[in-house]
Amino acid sequence: MVSRVVFGRGSFNQLDEILAPMRKGRNAPFIFYVDDVFKGNHWLTSRITLSYKDKIVYVPTKEEPKTSQIDQYVEDIILAHSELPSGIIGIGGGIVMDIAKAVSLMLTNKGESKDYQGWDLIKNPAIYHVGIPTISGTGAEVSRTTILTGPERKLGINSDYTPFDQVILDPELTKDVPKDQWFYTGMDCFVHCVESLNGTYLNAFSQSYGEKAFELCQDIFLGDNLSEKDSQDKLMMASWHGGMSIAYSQVGVAHALSYGLGYLLGVKHGIGNCIVFDHLEEFYPEGVVMFKKMKAKHNIELPQGICADLDEQQLNVMIDVALSLEPLWENAIGKNWKNKITREKLMTLYKLM
Amino acid sequence: MVSRVVFGRGSFNQLDEILAPMRKGRNAPFIFYVDDVFKGNHWLTSRITLSYKDKIVYVPTKEEPKTSQIDQYVEDIILAHSELPSGIIGIGGGIVMDIAKAVSLMLTNKGESKDYQGWDLIKNPAIYHVGIPTISGTGAEVSRTTILTGPERKLGINSDYTPFDQVILDPELTKDVPKDQWFYTGMDCFVHCVESLNGTYLNAFSQSYGEKAFELCQDIFLGDNLSEKDSQDKLMMASWHGGMSIAYSQVGVAHALSYGLGYLLGVKHGIGNCIVFDHLEEFYPEGVVMFKKMKAKHNIELPQGICADLDEQQLNVMIDVALSLEPLWENAIGKNWKNKITREKLMTLYKLM
Repeated sequence: MVSRVVFGRGSFNQLDEILAPMRKGRNAPFIFYVDDVFKGNHWLTSRITLSYKDKIVYVPTKEEPKTSQIDQYVEDIILAHSELPSGIIGIGGGIVMDIAKAVSLMLTNKGESKDYQGWDLIKNPAIYHVGIPTISGTGAEVSRTTILTGPERKLGINSDYTPFDQVILDPELTKDVPKDQWFYTGMDCFVHCVESLNGTYLNAFSQSYGEKAFELCQDIFLGDNLSEKDSQDKLMMASWHGGMSIAYSQVGVAHALSYGLGYLLGVKHGIGNCIVFDHLEEFYPEGVVMFKKMKAKHNIELPQGICADLDEQQLNVMIDVALSLEPLWENAIGKNWKNKITREKLMTLYKLM
Repeated sequence: MVSRVVFGRGSFNQLDEILAPMRKGRNAPFIFYVDDVFKGNHWLTSRITLSYKDKIVYVPTKEEPKTSQIDQYVEDIILAHSELPSGIIGIGGGIVMDIAKAVSLMLTNKGESKDYQGWDLIKNPAIYHVGIPTISGTGAEVSRTTILTGPERKLGINSDYTPFDQVILDPELTKDVPKDQWFYTGMDCFVHCVESLNGTYLNAFSQSYGEKAFELCQDIFLGDNLSEKDSQDKLMMASWHGGMSIAYSQVGVAHALSYGLGYLLGVKHGIGNCIVFDHLEEFYPEGVVMFKKMKAKHNIELPQGICADLDEQQLNVMIDVALSLEPLWENAIGKNWKNKITREKLMTLYKLM
């Protein structure tokens, strides 16, 4: 779990104070990975103090992170510095969170990041790493995974060393998120809750977190009583609790299928979840009804027919990716999931999207 | 925050596996502090494996922990072993949790534990420490404090180093808790939620945890639909969330007054909170109504008149202890609490108890 967290509007101002005691020397820099949407945004960047060899790396977020990209970032750091960094700080959405986590792990674990996609393959503790989300919903700020697209699969590096050492939850940082993005990413959290609460892995720990996040999502996306600030605050907490819920259970059908879309078509995770979830009445009847209400309330138009022009081979690539995520299916359907989830079934589902 | 947690009935069986990688050598023992109610309870103790110089210390829990007791435990360890322990493991209720946390801190911080009562006075990280609660409600398994009675005051050692490195939440361990104790300790959690949710320090982080714990308490103590096992599972989670809620806000009037009772009369924390809370309609009207319903439903008879025979000097000692807890009053009443909370007011309240 995340060892330390601060919460509050304006808490981003504590960054210097939080980092100062962690500095290991003038040759051990802090590396800041910042979503490139903030390039030139003085309101945010002026609050990042660079000393000695500290560096800001702006991260393009058009595509989800790749293992090759992580390996490149790690190499850049090793070539530029005589010592390991004092810390890695991610400031952005799920992509940046995952990059910060993956780089901090790969600085202390030999080889290529693709070799660590899976569960508990990491052997050494990561470099000190800090997560500062600027959009809410992914749960990446609290999770024990970092989802990467590798040469063979889209899969997380899941380990006890993955979670951030420090998280700064400042809801004010989410104030300029565009509405569509706000919805898609918020729905990532909503889908986490539905998948966790309806999964066979559920226990009282995950349930209590999942229920709270679910309730917050209903308030935020279907209620009419929240101020904009309250809504930002609560969505940041929903993301946190939703992330905690799946950390101790598992996601399900929507994530498995969404990973397929992401792998083949590069569909981003949030919108991918929405596209998929819209067609999952069979698996999550109540959740999907509620999702459709939320979509209608916020006038969200999802892309249609993104799989219409795919050939059989392409569809099969997505199906392979989806089926490889066995823990997700086992959580969603149960131990005998292979009886119910056939290639034909997934083919039919993908063709609806 | 707690770095690692496992949850589940039977998860206590993972203890060996969890500790093994943390062993630093044959001269660096694990010290297990175990509530003496488990002495001779083979069902529990047979699952604690002792190797090399590991040791079980049975802890009497008639009285709340004292700073002198912590200093004695630390001295015992230092005199008996050539190296610092590999870890300190607490297995029991709030008292044992607090002892394990305090000993692990005082093994690496010089001087006497009374010198660290307060906020953020601890300078060095603690020895690796593990908490395994066997009763639910105190939140001590998750909090960043360890409440000790010192020569001058009853106050916690609050620090970022206080929380456990590892917690094992196994609801099965709570199966033999006597009913009265179950109620008093559960109410500690309920009171945490009421104080946190009605406090001026409240933020969306604490609120989301507090609301979930509050809802679970209602289910457990006023509902009729839970099986015994579900009730145990949920109370363990309520305790966790309630503890998280106050960790990021603060407790209030009940805790301030209860500390006075504890300091002078040795009244234990759970029952002390109940005795006090029963008279706090003025501060927490809805919470107190609900508390009285819970008390009635479970046929709990609280001690009456425990302050009846106290003289003025004794009452003043309790009032001094209560008033010294300024953050609690500020949270409960606001910055101008001194206008409302006078010595006379507290005298009147204590005389009701």
